[in-house]
Amino acid sequence: MVSATPGNKPKIDLEAMRHSAAHVMAQAVQGLFPEAGLGIGPAIENGFYYDFELPRTLTPEDLPKIETGMRDIVASNTPFQREEVDKASARQLFSSQPYKLELIDELPDAKVSVYRQGSFADLCRGPHVASTAEIGAFKLTSIAGAYWRGDEHRPMLQRIYGVAFETQEALDSHLAKVAEAARRDHRKLGKELELFSLQEEAGPGLVFWHPKGATVRRVIEDFWKAEHIKRGYEMVYTPHVARLDLWKTSGHWDFYRENLYSPMDVEGQEYILKPMNCLGHILIFKTRKRSYRELPWRAAEMGTVYRYERSGVMHGLARVRGFTQDDAHIFCRSDQLQPELVGVLELARFMLTAFGFEEYDIKLSTRPDKYTGSLEMWDKSTEALRQALVQSKLPYEIDEGEGVFYGPKIDIKLKDALGRDWQGPTIQVDFNLPQRFGVVYVNEQGQDEQVVMVHRAVLGSMERFMACLVEHYGGAFPVWLAPQQAAIIPIADRHLDYAHQVEARLREAGLRAAVDARAERMNEKIRVAQVEKIPFMLVVGDREQASATVSVRRLSGEQSGSQSLADFIAMVQEAVRTRKLMI
Amino acid sequence: MVSATPGNKPKIDLEAMRHSAAHVMAQAVQGLFPEAGLGIGPAIENGFYYDFELPRTLTPEDLPKIETGMRDIVASNTPFQREEVDKASARQLFSSQPYKLELIDELPDAKVSVYRQGSFADLCRGPHVASTAEIGAFKLTSIAGAYWRGDEHRPMLQRIYGVAFETQEALDSHLAKVAEAARRDHRKLGKELELFSLQEEAGPGLVFWHPKGATVRRVIEDFWKAEHIKRGYEMVYTPHVARLDLWKTSGHWDFYRENLYSPMDVEGQEYILKPMNCLGHILIFKTRKRSYRELPWRAAEMGTVYRYERSGVMHGLARVRGFTQDDAHIFCRSDQLQPELVGVLELARFMLTAFGFEEYDIKLSTRPDKYTGSLEMWDKSTEALRQALVQSKLPYEIDEGEGVFYGPKIDIKLKDALGRDWQGPTIQVDFNLPQRFGVVYVNEQGQDEQVVMVHRAVLGSMERFMACLVEHYGGAFPVWLAPQQAAIIPIADRHLDYAHQVEARLREAGLRAAVDARAERMNEKIRVAQVEKIPFMLVVGDREQASATVSVRRLSGEQSGSQSLADFIAMVQEAVRTRKLMI
Repeated sequence: MVSATPGNKPKIDLEAMRHSAAHVMAQAVQGLFPEAGLGIGPAIENGFYYDFELPRTLTPEDLPKIETGMRDIVASNTPFQREEVDKASARQLFSSQPYKLELIDELPDAKVSVYRQGSFADLCRGPHVASTAEIGAFKLTSIAGAYWRGDEHRPMLQRIYGVAFETQEALDSHLAKVAEAARRDHRKLGKELELFSLQEEAGPGLVFWHPKGATVRRVIEDFWKAEHIKRGYEMVYTPHVARLDLWKTSGHWDFYRENLYSPMDVEGQEYILKPMNCLGHILIFKTRKRSYRELPWRAAEMGTVYRYERSGVMHGLARVRGFTQDDAHIFCRSDQLQPELVGVLELARFMLTAFGFEEYDIKLSTRPDKYTGSLEMWDKSTEALRQALVQSKLPYEIDEGEGVFYGPKIDIKLKDALGRDWQGPTIQVDFNLPQRFGVVYVNEQGQDEQVVMVHRAVLGSMERFMACLVEHYGGAFPVWLAPQQAAIIPIADRHLDYAHQVEARLREAGLRAAVDARAERMNEKIRVAQVEKIPFMLVVGDREQASATVSVRRLSGEQSGSQSLADFIAMVQEAVRTRKLMI
Repeated sequence: MVSATPGNKPKIDLEAMRHSAAHVMAQAVQGLFPEAGLGIGPAIENGFYYDFELPRTLTPEDLPKIETGMRDIVASNTPFQREEVDKASARQLFSSQPYKLELIDELPDAKVSVYRQGSFADLCRGPHVASTAEIGAFKLTSIAGAYWRGDEHRPMLQRIYGVAFETQEALDSHLAKVAEAARRDHRKLGKELELFSLQEEAGPGLVFWHPKGATVRRVIEDFWKAEHIKRGYEMVYTPHVARLDLWKTSGHWDFYRENLYSPMDVEGQEYILKPMNCLGHILIFKTRKRSYRELPWRAAEMGTVYRYERSGVMHGLARVRGFTQDDAHIFCRSDQLQPELVGVLELARFMLTAFGFEEYDIKLSTRPDKYTGSLEMWDKSTEALRQALVQSKLPYEIDEGEGVFYGPKIDIKLKDALGRDWQGPTIQVDFNLPQRFGVVYVNEQGQDEQVVMVHRAVLGSMERFMACLVEHYGGAFPVWLAPQQAAIIPIADRHLDYAHQVEARLREAGLRAAVDARAERMNEKIRVAQVEKIPFMLVVGDREQASATVSVRRLSGEQSGSQSLADFIAMVQEAVRTRKLMI
């Protein structure tokens, strides 16, 4: 449907257009497979899909044929016509379509609506565009299996996905963005750059960090620890397994059981892998009486936790079963809560800026349906978070009912280089665990008073943050993070000694560098260094050797000519020290 | 029994003397409790014990009374007399002693030996000293419960422990050493210095590293990582849980099951907590083909592993259920094995020297009864280890049958400041796992060839090494390791601002320092800093403030007077950089 906006070009209703494209696709598929059974075919983000029961499995070669059929239907400029019929007539109309009959039976009203274009009819609420000619530029993108109604006990149908936009230009731009996202996919780059692997033999969702990925992670962890220590956090380590009883006391067993690993038996006691680090920090806090003068106590840990996820939902490093949270818990008095939350927001902004993230979406998530603790607690904590956002002058939206079972939270979503959202910092206020575990301090009057706890992670998890960084940088890490910062490339074998001297000097200076000593031509070595996305290639030959210089070539291909080795080292050290994103 | 060595002072047989002291103790106990039932009473390291069934529970106040009785018997100079009797006579003699009767029944020979001193007789193999007067200086040290024959289904007896030496001087020296060991006990110091805790609520044997202990651990880990990277190791991270099947392939399930945590279920698959890091490193190695040119590959990880230990055998940080190994696996060609082993021995010596350990006991452990792999493999790997020791000019002993099920190993035991042994570096050669997992590289001829694996840990585990360090240093860590390096102590409140300036300067310089701003007198603050074993106390008053100096007081009490703040910082930085043990 085209809606005219006064003074503007008519603006197309994209959702109706995409939904109409789904009907047109179904008609085209029926043209190729007259016996096709029809499932459902809605509009989705950027496009549409339709589920079919077909006499054979589709192949990618079928998609152009279906597209051709669709183009003919669009060219025919056939109107979409709505009609309302009673259920009996609808059953008659769809008598050869069992999935449609099932839907008709479940519709609550006496009458149902049907949309027709030419000979094709579909059970549908609408709306649609006026005519098939109003369907813009489209492309069928993929085929996937999909259980009827998402139920693994029902038949598996074949789903065809397509994308559709108002103009060819918009479609091309979308396809280019998708291709760029595929080029940056952390699963693909993670393998190509040897950053990490997931190993079916060990089990899905368990991450193995290879040397190069582990180097990036270590640099991030060192930065994270130094910055936290500077801001008054204290590092701790706590075990990955503990008695299940602790998680019963905390409420996790009641509220979060479907995400816990199953218990294991130790001498007749049940233990589980920790899904969170908070209880360990609480136990440390409680080993002795703490005075009001000792608060706030900020306990930080790169804490690896394990949570159960269904096999189907896991995705590279972004959704896994074991991950390391850059976790900290702040134990404070209620008069310290506000400044502490402001401090966390400031730290979060500082750290994200260091990685080049400048745009955020901030959500304040409130009480969910399944919750623990009093309403008063919830109000108090939600208000504390809101005030901290206001004081930090950060715009935010309310995400109703999306808090954790034990308290409200702030979620900060980062926008990456392609404008996509990634889950970043989380900050939760918790009056509940301190109550359940009796976490108290001795106040100025010598009486026990309950602490307020703040749960917070800035990067979220090392795994997800790594996925985000890989896709944000397209695998070309800034020099301070790059697994290898410089490749030293001798022009001929007689330059190998000098190349190794350069390597030794760089390493002494704390830089990550290596000579490519393979018996290959220089151009091949440059090509490999580019594939490995090494920021600097240092070509060394007779001239460089004679003058104690290196010939610097950047990953971009830019060649800045000869530079003294000392100058090069100083420049890179400065870039590392200041965490420069571009150099 | 006194054995005369020609030309020397007669040398006492300490074991016989201690065993005789046990008999004398039993006689003294019978003097106080005529109805006492006698268990067994052997000599042990440094002394002896005897198990009794008594009408009431002993208290520490009973020990001096028993000692008095023993002294009387010693003074009486009563001879020990051996006699051989048939079992019937023995049964008659011990008719009121059911535990002795049980022992008599089990003795295989027709005749049994009995030792008498005066009215006291004991079923005993001997030997004993000639007379009670030959018993040297002794002291009863403790009372403990002990099941008859160590069987928890038999009666609980009362065990009295004593120590005995040839001379009072030797006894005093031993008691002083024991008292010093108690003062240095890492469980006691760990609590006093807030280094770590074990939490019954979470489960026994699971370590919580508090901020101060975690600081020491972090400094060690950073040192360890830097040194390993310098020597060509590459860091990796692998998950703490994996499919049980991996451990069936490896042989751990068959050979090591009693030390594994029980399996947990994930989607119908059994998973376990990893008892070792090797399989993770193997899986990383195997993600792609490796060329002979890429070997040796040295994969290192601070890997936390979990192994089941019975509750009874756990001990502070020294024996736990979860611990972090400073682990690495070297994947190499067989021609590289020798130099790699030598390199590991060199690294181990370098690292241990950094912590102040200069004396070692080295054991080469050979094939155990339960083993896997061919005899040829075992011979090859044992010989490789032996050659590496020879090449490194390290003296060693053979520990027959003490290897791991998959290969022989070198164990290096450290001697701490009190001369006690601690398990340190371990180096194992393994031809077995590479075979079971098909770990191969492509050799120069383009063919697959099996790698040789070296398992090695230098510190062993962070937990046990920390226990060792705490006891070795008596809690007074060298400045590079100290959780807090300097306490800044203002003389009066008006010096607080300057104290905080000093603190800020020290922290900027990367030092761990804090102002003691409590409303306490200076002397009390010095006392607390000493209890906390902080290496430097910087007292600041009018004079220091006026001259930008600090008045330096060392933990030893030594006062080196005023020093410019810049000089002090430079001195400490240098001590940290060079890991000075004394300053």
